[in-house]
Amino acid sequence: MKALEEKILTEGTVLPGNVLKVGGFLNQQIDSDFIMEIGKEIARLYESEHITRVLTVESSGIAIAVAAGIALHVPCIFAKKHRSANMPREVYTASVYSYTHRETYEIAVAKDYLSSADRVLIVDDFLANGNAVRGLMRILEDAGAQLAGCAIAIEKGFQGAGDELRAKGIRVESLAIVDAMTDESVRFRAQ
Amino acid sequence: MKALEEKILTEGTVLPGNVLKVGGFLNQQIDSDFIMEIGKEIARLYESEHITRVLTVESSGIAIAVAAGIALHVPCIFAKKHRSANMPREVYTASVYSYTHRETYEIAVAKDYLSSADRVLIVDDFLANGNAVRGLMRILEDAGAQLAGCAIAIEKGFQGAGDELRAKGIRVESLAIVDAMTDESVRFRAQ
Repeated sequence: MKALEEKILTEGTVLPGNVLKVGGFLNQQIDSDFIMEIGKEIARLYESEHITRVLTVESSGIAIAVAAGIALHVPCIFAKKHRSANMPREVYTASVYSYTHRETYEIAVAKDYLSSADRVLIVDDFLANGNAVRGLMRILEDAGAQLAGCAIAIEKGFQGAGDELRAKGIRVESLAIVDAMTDESVRFRAQ
Repeated sequence: MKALEEKILTEGTVLPGNVLKVGGFLNQQIDSDFIMEIGKEIARLYESEHITRVLTVESSGIAIAVAAGIALHVPCIFAKKHRSANMPREVYTASVYSYTHRETYEIAVAKDYLSSADRVLIVDDFLANGNAVRGLMRILEDAGAQLAGCAIAIEKGFQGAGDELRAKGIRVESLAIVDAMTDESVRFRAQ
């Protein structure tokens, strides 16, 4: 998605530790019109896939997943990182190791919201080491739900997880794939 | 908003401890078409208010805030509950006590995303004791930004915070106000 690549180049910042900061339009501050464009692009890519639900992890994935859900006209579910008082006791869970926060956390989705009748699109803002996506895939397996594919805003291609998933036959559509980045430049994979 | 009241009656559940569970369409699972209707209703209510930014707290407020941002065509910002590695060091912060989780947490918004030029709409899924909204209001004060008002999906009228804010002259628009609830019934305030 050319517009996303341009936005990364003009508004993104590369921080130490291979961090690509896009908090000004994709994370902490969301460019609402642009997130809806991203949602529509995801819907266009997966329109023939008979998606029944969009699944993400809280909290940075929620905005893009909601935009995709709105564009696809299907419900959007987010896995919670901590069980809350309002959460049903019956949940699917998976452990996810976060390199950003250097800790393992549990993600959980209430069993009410996923079933074997579902064909699910996993959506997230970033794909780096792939741990969050693999955690969500384990939850889908537990639920007996079908994985239709993954839709990612920004894939860090140099970390390899996207290509590993593709090698397993999983459809992974990333709207921008960063193959290399330094303080001065970001190189995108031609798509 | 009649459609929201009807959805609460048909899909919501009252749990012990004055919890109104609407996780099936407003929280953990989001009815995408419906959240967009809520966003449009919020935009209709505040269309003449020259809003420049929508502000919420992660993570349950994000979906509705994004929908409102899309409908108002303004950026949406969410206060983070924990500082992340990718967060600028320069932040506005406030302490918020959560009755649900019985703990005090810090919320933070990067200074880059709020300024005295902003006229901000606070959006959240629930208004109960009002602690989250008051925390967000302190952040707006620190930033010198103007508060245009609050837009809430479900206000627990019987907890009083909405009326306290209104008594201070703050515009609070709640799409459904629950004045009483028991296992068997939910009573809405006429609006």
